[in-house]
Amino acid sequence: MNHIQNNSWIEVSIDSDFPLQNIPFGVFRHPVEKDGRCATRIGDTVIDLSQLASLGYFDAFEMDLSVFFENHLNPFIELGKEVTTKVRLFLIDFFGVQNIPDQDERKMIESSFFDAKSIEMMMPIRVGDYTDFYSSIDHATNVGIMFRDPENALFPNWKHLPVGYHGRSSSIVVSGTKIHRPKGQILPQGSTTPIFSPSRTMDFELEMAFIIGKESDLGSSISTSEADEYIFGMLAFNDLSARDIQKWEYVPLGPFLGKNFGSVVSPWIVTLEALEPFRVKGSNQEPQVLPYLQFTGMKNYDIHLDVILETQDGVETVISKSNHKYLYWNMCQQLAHHTINGCNVRVGDLYASGTISGPTDESYGSLLELSWGGTKTIQLKDGTERKFLNDFDQINIHAYCKMENLRIGFGECRTQLLPAKI
Amino acid sequence: MNHIQNNSWIEVSIDSDFPLQNIPFGVFRHPVEKDGRCATRIGDTVIDLSQLASLGYFDAFEMDLSVFFENHLNPFIELGKEVTTKVRLFLIDFFGVQNIPDQDERKMIESSFFDAKSIEMMMPIRVGDYTDFYSSIDHATNVGIMFRDPENALFPNWKHLPVGYHGRSSSIVVSGTKIHRPKGQILPQGSTTPIFSPSRTMDFELEMAFIIGKESDLGSSISTSEADEYIFGMLAFNDLSARDIQKWEYVPLGPFLGKNFGSVVSPWIVTLEALEPFRVKGSNQEPQVLPYLQFTGMKNYDIHLDVILETQDGVETVISKSNHKYLYWNMCQQLAHHTINGCNVRVGDLYASGTISGPTDESYGSLLELSWGGTKTIQLKDGTERKFLNDFDQINIHAYCKMENLRIGFGECRTQLLPAKI
Repeated sequence: MNHIQNNSWIEVSIDSDFPLQNIPFGVFRHPVEKDGRCATRIGDTVIDLSQLASLGYFDAFEMDLSVFFENHLNPFIELGKEVTTKVRLFLIDFFGVQNIPDQDERKMIESSFFDAKSIEMMMPIRVGDYTDFYSSIDHATNVGIMFRDPENALFPNWKHLPVGYHGRSSSIVVSGTKIHRPKGQILPQGSTTPIFSPSRTMDFELEMAFIIGKESDLGSSISTSEADEYIFGMLAFNDLSARDIQKWEYVPLGPFLGKNFGSVVSPWIVTLEALEPFRVKGSNQEPQVLPYLQFTGMKNYDIHLDVILETQDGVETVISKSNHKYLYWNMCQQLAHHTINGCNVRVGDLYASGTISGPTDESYGSLLELSWGGTKTIQLKDGTERKFLNDFDQINIHAYCKMENLRIGFGECRTQLLPAKI
Repeated sequence: MNHIQNNSWIEVSIDSDFPLQNIPFGVFRHPVEKDGRCATRIGDTVIDLSQLASLGYFDAFEMDLSVFFENHLNPFIELGKEVTTKVRLFLIDFFGVQNIPDQDERKMIESSFFDAKSIEMMMPIRVGDYTDFYSSIDHATNVGIMFRDPENALFPNWKHLPVGYHGRSSSIVVSGTKIHRPKGQILPQGSTTPIFSPSRTMDFELEMAFIIGKESDLGSSISTSEADEYIFGMLAFNDLSARDIQKWEYVPLGPFLGKNFGSVVSPWIVTLEALEPFRVKGSNQEPQVLPYLQFTGMKNYDIHLDVILETQDGVETVISKSNHKYLYWNMCQQLAHHTINGCNVRVGDLYASGTISGPTDESYGSLLELSWGGTKTIQLKDGTERKFLNDFDQINIHAYCKMENLRIGFGECRTQLLPAKI
């Protein structure tokens, strides 16, 4: 049934997110050092690119090799796709079964290998600006039905432009980071005076994000056809949300403290090139969008998105199964819209999709929707129930693409909710 | 009448923003180099701190002198107030009349001097995150009356928390940068379908901003009494706004393309220490705020804020005279609120006040208010009128403090609106 073949001389299990065809980029902490090093991953093997550079394997590239010794990928990405794509293709060839090294060389190369379980992944990029879109029509519709008017669930602007807002960069953290339940102002039901309290309605948001790979100038715009050139790759993204704090604060200027206490990314940036086989057509856009938002070609991606809730006792339940292809507005449209006014982008900027809900109950991308505003309960495999997150709950977003003979994934995007600090 | 005395052996005119008591920090482009150097300014003399360092004048500090050779002040500020305050006090002493150098030494020191008119100031900091508050009660009330309900002009949350939102860092530029009129979606009056157009209602927003000088950890909070330690200094800030783009896009997630095409800062960061003599009491806050927003001491500042509109023919009109002291929420409250949920701050973060309007018509901080939503005209000295900005109009925000024998100012915060790019 499963025809996935391993094309690398490094072992790769058939359910791995990281076959030879992936070659994502990340930053890990070298076991004996404080600082990070750039890396890729094949199977469960994390490969230190700074060590490969030291061994001379990138000498032919005539590139600045110091980029692999940095704490984040920005300097590497700044070299441009011409270089980064060449590096990726070189690694696919270098680790391919057609290039099995002899024992001596293998030993040398293996000095760059680390077991994924033995090292710590770091935040892969220094994020410049972070924008969060609101591009899932099912999510926007669900929220509109719950909080506004079932007959007019979408705001008048929603189908004309990819609604988005600026978020907080400083608190974007890498998978594995634990986040304390935030405190703040919430308005008790029926009251007109807020109280100070830890959030009582903690939620995740199932999102994907893309990372800018090429800067643009202030005053210039990026067209939908140019946009792919500006996108280096993608990450899974969990936009943790305190619904009660958000509800009280967000009118009229948008979400703020209900969101900026922590967002979580998966550690490996999967390149657009690795995702190429999984392009699909998006939904029809009706009414027709303005010319600057029109595009040709397939701009959505068939990326499966599972949300796993793990309770304190270690029992996992898949609470949502969604897909990136459900997005109404694609990444190229998001970027074209974001820059149509002349706003500039920089390498390392992060653009998140907004919660990606699918059309069915099981594919909703937040507890707000899964519990329908707290009116329904979600059954977990350990016999407990949830409407919102409990302290010590872990959320893992697992994003992966698959076809008969290929699987490309993003690894874990995991966080644990700790109790509020006293 | 004017008792201001010059205490420096460098010439300072009595109406200068930069007497010896100011000693602000900025970054300028050395005339023969591409890169920036850190500097201070006394009168019209820009003083290259990297050159003073090269001459050995900071040797006693045992500090990392490379910070003065950077393109932005972040590394200098990261040394901490203990160091930066010492440097500032040293400069006040070094350039004081009690320390007039002999002719030879003077010649050497003057190798670090540049006429302010002969050099180009650069963006003084690399901004991490940028947050814009909405802390002027007169501004929020005016907007509420115009767009909502005169009887309930303020939203229910407004007097309970300093409303704010995240803005765009990449497009914050230094005084003197010209900005093109942005294009985007606007909804013509009476229509339900947006059109694509250059903005027709271009506005400025009179704001001040503060710069973070000390980082905090994710999960921790900064109290109102600790906040001053985290604030390095202040800048004048012009949050350019395209009202028509903003109006169509901003519900429900807040301002986005209506703002992020360009915001302008003054080039010199004036330290909190230099502003110390100008602390004043703020307005009474009623209802009482929650404990984490309470504070003791004087946390507002008496900073005069003039807005000058210069038309293409070079004629200047002061179109608004406001004051920083009108802010309802002070900077310490803003910072305490921003971090109460555990959101971390980093050196170089920029926090803007929101439009600072005073209680009278002449003190409104935006054309939206001065023209009362486009229903009134503003008379300019060249005989023309404005409701919103014309192409080629320049806006300069001039912020300055004054008392009988002291004047501390921020210099220019100027931009020119260029026509939309075709």
